Amino acid sequence: MNTPTLRLGVAGLGRAFSLMLPTFLNDSRVQLVAASDPRPEARARFERDFAAPTYSDVDALVANPDVQVVYIASPHQLHAEHTRIAAAHGKHVLVEKPMALSLDECDSMIQACKASGVTLLIGHCHSFDTPYLRTHELISGGEFGSVRMVHALNYTDYLFRPRRPEELSTQDGGGAVFSQAAHQVDIVRMLVGARPVRLRSALGRWNTSRPTEGAYSALLWFASGAYASLNYSGYAHFDSDEWMDWVGEMGNPKSAQDYGAARKKLAAIASPAAEATLKAAGTYGGSAYARAAAQTAFAEPSHQHFGSLIVSCDHADLRPMPNGILIYGDTGREFRALPAPVIPRFEVIDELHGAIYNDRPCLHDGAWAKATLEICLAMLKSDDHAEDVLLNNQV
Amino acid sequence: MNTPTLRLGVAGLGRAFSLMLPTFLNDSRVQLVAASDPRPEARARFERDFAAPTYSDVDALVANPDVQVVYIASPHQLHAEHTRIAAAHGKHVLVEKPMALSLDECDSMIQACKASGVTLLIGHCHSFDTPYLRTHELISGGEFGSVRMVHALNYTDYLFRPRRPEELSTQDGGGAVFSQAAHQVDIVRMLVGARPVRLRSALGRWNTSRPTEGAYSALLWFASGAYASLNYSGYAHFDSDEWMDWVGEMGNPKSAQDYGAARKKLAAIASPAAEATLKAAGTYGGSAYARAAAQTAFAEPSHQHFGSLIVSCDHADLRPMPNGILIYGDTGREFRALPAPVIPRFEVIDELHGAIYNDRPCLHDGAWAKATLEICLAMLKSDDHAEDVLLNNQV
Repeated sequence: MNTPTLRLGVAGLGRAFSLMLPTFLNDSRVQLVAASDPRPEARARFERDFAAPTYSDVDALVANPDVQVVYIASPHQLHAEHTRIAAAHGKHVLVEKPMALSLDECDSMIQACKASGVTLLIGHCHSFDTPYLRTHELISGGEFGSVRMVHALNYTDYLFRPRRPEELSTQDGGGAVFSQAAHQVDIVRMLVGARPVRLRSALGRWNTSRPTEGAYSALLWFASGAYASLNYSGYAHFDSDEWMDWVGEMGNPKSAQDYGAARKKLAAIASPAAEATLKAAGTYGGSAYARAAAQTAFAEPSHQHFGSLIVSCDHADLRPMPNGILIYGDTGREFRALPAPVIPRFEVIDELHGAIYNDRPCLHDGAWAKATLEICLAMLKSDDHAEDVLLNNQV
Repeated sequence: MNTPTLRLGVAGLGRAFSLMLPTFLNDSRVQLVAASDPRPEARARFERDFAAPTYSDVDALVANPDVQVVYIASPHQLHAEHTRIAAAHGKHVLVEKPMALSLDECDSMIQACKASGVTLLIGHCHSFDTPYLRTHELISGGEFGSVRMVHALNYTDYLFRPRRPEELSTQDGGGAVFSQAAHQVDIVRMLVGARPVRLRSALGRWNTSRPTEGAYSALLWFASGAYASLNYSGYAHFDSDEWMDWVGEMGNPKSAQDYGAARKKLAAIASPAAEATLKAAGTYGGSAYARAAAQTAFAEPSHQHFGSLIVSCDHADLRPMPNGILIYGDTGREFRALPAPVIPRFEVIDELHGAIYNDRPCLHDGAWAKATLEICLAMLKSDDHAEDVLLNNQV
């Protein structure tokens, strides 16, 4: 019996799509049947690569009867509108994180998908990464007692990578909170396995030429009594992948030779417009885009991750790592190795496929992702108001 | 010209004294001239080791005219009273951290020393450790721009080491906040170099048989706009010295073979009374106390430290390490090695000697340590009241 395929129409051929392309190319359950993007060069490339039709806007894409699932990888501020359009045409929706920029938008997306009876899945997010999913299973098994505390830290050069101007504008969904905290919050929520109740944050906004949040630290309390400390710097000079066996976010081996690469590259760029051009050139369809990169990503030897994480239970501290899980127990220390990923981010396709063909409930559904967005919005508000923010939309 | 010596009378021959003994034994500027302690076996040993008089109470100690400085290493709840007694007799005071258990006590200590014109120094605290002092100098030099953010983390087995019952009682000055946060707060304050203004904390109290705070995370904001994330676990299974080149708090090399030693030892102890007995046995004068330990500590090849610390400035992240300072700059990474310590904690004697003989101002004076205590007390209050605590006694 053949596994039925998912016929994906891609809304937005930008960076998010580039990062998912190795998955789509290598997971036989996925077929790319159409795409939309405002950039003619991206459309031309897609047509060449996949012999499939493309459109300049999403309305035409969703009207294509071959499209079964719309993968929404458009800019953050368009996620809600594109989801509603897709759902209105009876298409399932896989939407990139952050789900949207407001809780109202999330509600309208959930409502639209429910009304049409289509699946709504939010991903990829690093909480899909196998080491976190397996750590979650270990914790749920109960052998280590209750989760009491989580510490998460990720120090990257996020803010110094080439950006479009909107990615440096918080109100347009840019900055470390919308783009990066979404990952960390999602992972921590999954691992604690209890309802978050309140949050206090401190935000770092100290680079005036890139005027958005580049760093944050936050305390997050859960109904179970557990708490988490979330720490992120996108301004970092120190690379916390040093604590992750020198494996990068994408599961890639890293070299000390690459020190400061992002800042070096950025220093050579004259203007925001030149930066946006550079980013576009490196994106799918752009002059500097390397298809090779997408293909070799297939072969990464380690799992993807989002930085250092220590989950403290009564009887063990657990550290999900790129190649397994470190278990520091009461009497001994152990490394439970995980098999290398065969296809990057196959976990997203697992969940989407299971939902559509086996009616399996999604973990990363609309209510889940809305709860993560609520916490990201609370991070912005808590720093601004200098007080705790109570959380009311958690699951 | 000979360097004049400091003639120390020791009030309390417990663990704090044991940890300072290598300093006193090896720093020729120090002479131990008398001691007080309620335990006869400790007094007997001191008399044997130093051919010096001992007393069962501190009043007799301070009356000894040979005593120039009283080193107050009595239980936390007695620091204030013993300081007042020493000052009233015109003795200089070196008092262990935490300075006291309330701000009123701190005020009375500052007042008493000021009225008598004697020096009041609080230490040892890990902010005296050379790598932190040198990092502070580097930052003050300005080459890296402003301090924007600090991240501190220390995961230890603190709560599972042998304890007296009072060390597990917060109201008696026990627990991770009074004993451990004092170090971290002191270091972070020194490195940020700005006035702390507010704090929010989460405390971990999850071991019912050791009913005090064993863990905390806190956000600390400074008048400069910088913030710090402070994280500590004394319940830890993961040992963060893994991130400090496997050098322990005392500058000692660590071995992976010792995994879980504290928990293993504790599991074999029948009762709190047996635990207190065990602790006493391992303390100065006790049957299991090894003088050798004090002497070999002299030879530790690395500086002492208090866990992982990342100071993020505009143009570099700085990491004070046991053997130097890692500088992750805009364009390159560098390790500035520090010479190995010749005498552990000689920095305390430097500051004390400079204050008494050269009228040099102390960094770790009463106002400084009171400010650290205010932050520790704010940690207890913030968690209890579930809100920010404003800081009003900072320097």
